[in-house]
Amino acid sequence: MHIDELDTPVLTVDLDALEANLDRYQRYFDEHKIGLRPHIKTHKTLAIAHMQMKAGAIGLTCQKIGEAEVMAGGGITSDLLIPYNILGQQKLDRLMALARQAHITVAADSDVVVHGLSEAAHAAGLTLGVLIEVETGSNRTGVTTAEEALHLAQLIDKLPGLEMRGLMGYPTPPEARPIFQESIALLDRAGLPHPIVSGGGTKCAFQAHELPELTEYRIGEHIVGGVGHLLAGRHSVDECALRVIATVVSRPVNGRAVLDCGSKTMSATILQTENGPSIGHIVEYPDARFYSYSEEHGHVDVSACDRKPVIGERVQVIPVHPCPCVNEHDELVAVRKGEVEAIWPIYARGKIR
Amino acid sequence: MHIDELDTPVLTVDLDALEANLDRYQRYFDEHKIGLRPHIKTHKTLAIAHMQMKAGAIGLTCQKIGEAEVMAGGGITSDLLIPYNILGQQKLDRLMALARQAHITVAADSDVVVHGLSEAAHAAGLTLGVLIEVETGSNRTGVTTAEEALHLAQLIDKLPGLEMRGLMGYPTPPEARPIFQESIALLDRAGLPHPIVSGGGTKCAFQAHELPELTEYRIGEHIVGGVGHLLAGRHSVDECALRVIATVVSRPVNGRAVLDCGSKTMSATILQTENGPSIGHIVEYPDARFYSYSEEHGHVDVSACDRKPVIGERVQVIPVHPCPCVNEHDELVAVRKGEVEAIWPIYARGKIR
Repeated sequence: MHIDELDTPVLTVDLDALEANLDRYQRYFDEHKIGLRPHIKTHKTLAIAHMQMKAGAIGLTCQKIGEAEVMAGGGITSDLLIPYNILGQQKLDRLMALARQAHITVAADSDVVVHGLSEAAHAAGLTLGVLIEVETGSNRTGVTTAEEALHLAQLIDKLPGLEMRGLMGYPTPPEARPIFQESIALLDRAGLPHPIVSGGGTKCAFQAHELPELTEYRIGEHIVGGVGHLLAGRHSVDECALRVIATVVSRPVNGRAVLDCGSKTMSATILQTENGPSIGHIVEYPDARFYSYSEEHGHVDVSACDRKPVIGERVQVIPVHPCPCVNEHDELVAVRKGEVEAIWPIYARGKIR
Repeated sequence: MHIDELDTPVLTVDLDALEANLDRYQRYFDEHKIGLRPHIKTHKTLAIAHMQMKAGAIGLTCQKIGEAEVMAGGGITSDLLIPYNILGQQKLDRLMALARQAHITVAADSDVVVHGLSEAAHAAGLTLGVLIEVETGSNRTGVTTAEEALHLAQLIDKLPGLEMRGLMGYPTPPEARPIFQESIALLDRAGLPHPIVSGGGTKCAFQAHELPELTEYRIGEHIVGGVGHLLAGRHSVDECALRVIATVVSRPVNGRAVLDCGSKTMSATILQTENGPSIGHIVEYPDARFYSYSEEHGHVDVSACDRKPVIGERVQVIPVHPCPCVNEHDELVAVRKGEVEAIWPIYARGKIR
């Protein structure tokens, strides 16, 4: 089946580009002896997760328990990291069930979370690995000082059912190095182990070696790119493997084309660029501006295009942020040289718990 | 089961508030003798669609064929409007199949779309009702002059398989009246029928009677509200029926709380308010600002809150835009006075084709 036979809008991934990206990043991390632990939040499929493991990943990153359940249920149990504060009896029960099937590590940034993990693991007769999350620039979660990291490490070390496995942060540009260095110095002085020091983020992935403390790295978007990566030069158009194929459904005025892909297809993410807001990059019309959306319509300014798209014409759109875009869809169509090779269920879609 | 027993994040709808909103809007439209044709894009459930039909709706609005297939398959076949330009053989085949089960009306804003509809309906031996979409302020789809509307009406009237059913626009504030008046005048002069004149939009719903041309009205969000409606005074906090129940998973610094609901739970929609960007309104902490997100984290500034939420605490979040938020979820939990009454599958989630 040729991609032109697929009804639109439809989410596709180009396998040649995907494989090249997989290889490009795996080679970098292999070269620098940093473990690559891909984040499955981007693709949420078992098919790509298996490709990543085969390519040399040391394990996977899953942001919620539900994602890890999908991966473990799909045969990937060797090493799963859930870099998230897990709280509450229902989640802890699921986490323990998962820890019986798979090698699991979680993260924590507070006493409350560490105590909950310990009680659950101890009651289940299990040992759960824990990383301490440190704040490295996201202004999100993570302890903000090395002293707090030491305090949590001591707590993890002391409480039953837990194993201190190290540190993690997101994102980890070279400027994030000090809190790792300071925390490691305190841990070493206290004789506490830190076999894992985990960095993350596609933006600064190729600078990971500038933080020699890192033992492993978490990235998701590297395999497919996106408009932000395209504009920053991290991915060429050809390397942006994820595309929404859409149809022009209206040309109400000369300068505007309307596509059949709105926020429920692209996600509601808007990237602010120097040319204004962007919802996606239209491959066939690089001068077009996909500037706005309704839920099922994409609003495109085609006034700068010499040739303008006609009603019924199909275009390929690179989303601005692949992860929430994928999460809108139930299936991902894998294509190679224009032919459909597989249709992959996005099994971890919507796994928010 | 009490809502406190539901694991988070979870999407809920308060039935008392939902029913009060249904009733409030139905009464207005009944009073003004305007047919109410609710848009199911907001809730995407059969349960609420059946409630809307029972409350007095004249039919339903479905934005894509896939939504209409769910409604027809769920027993609602009496009158479905798909206000969308339908193009391409696969969609036209599905539309014809649907038109055999249900009373269907579609919209068109170009010759290309009208010709496609006619060929499909004629070949299938069916008569398909068509509305002409006119531009009324969305700068999206729709013909921009009454002359174009007349031209399309003549085409619909002439071509086999089609029935000219009238006009539609979105949104339709009172200022949208002229294009309806002008188009109707031209249609009347040409002896062309327009039994339906359809307006839409929750924002200006209670002004629908100021456009006496309108015979019916399409709205979706009125049943659940959202932060935009709350800020504009259209819905009180109690009338905002849709809530994400979330848990505080981190308090890394005194002024910041992090929730377990990010863009994959709330949708990536950001509402710009006078207090900055908003992802949602936290009912228990009205002074908190839910100002940013990651995919699975909600970033909340709690520095203005006298009492600050603690780790593990549960809060209710009103999303800024209910429609894309619902579309992230597989289930909607219906609650009344804190008790779970039903768990509704969001059958039309992801129906983008």
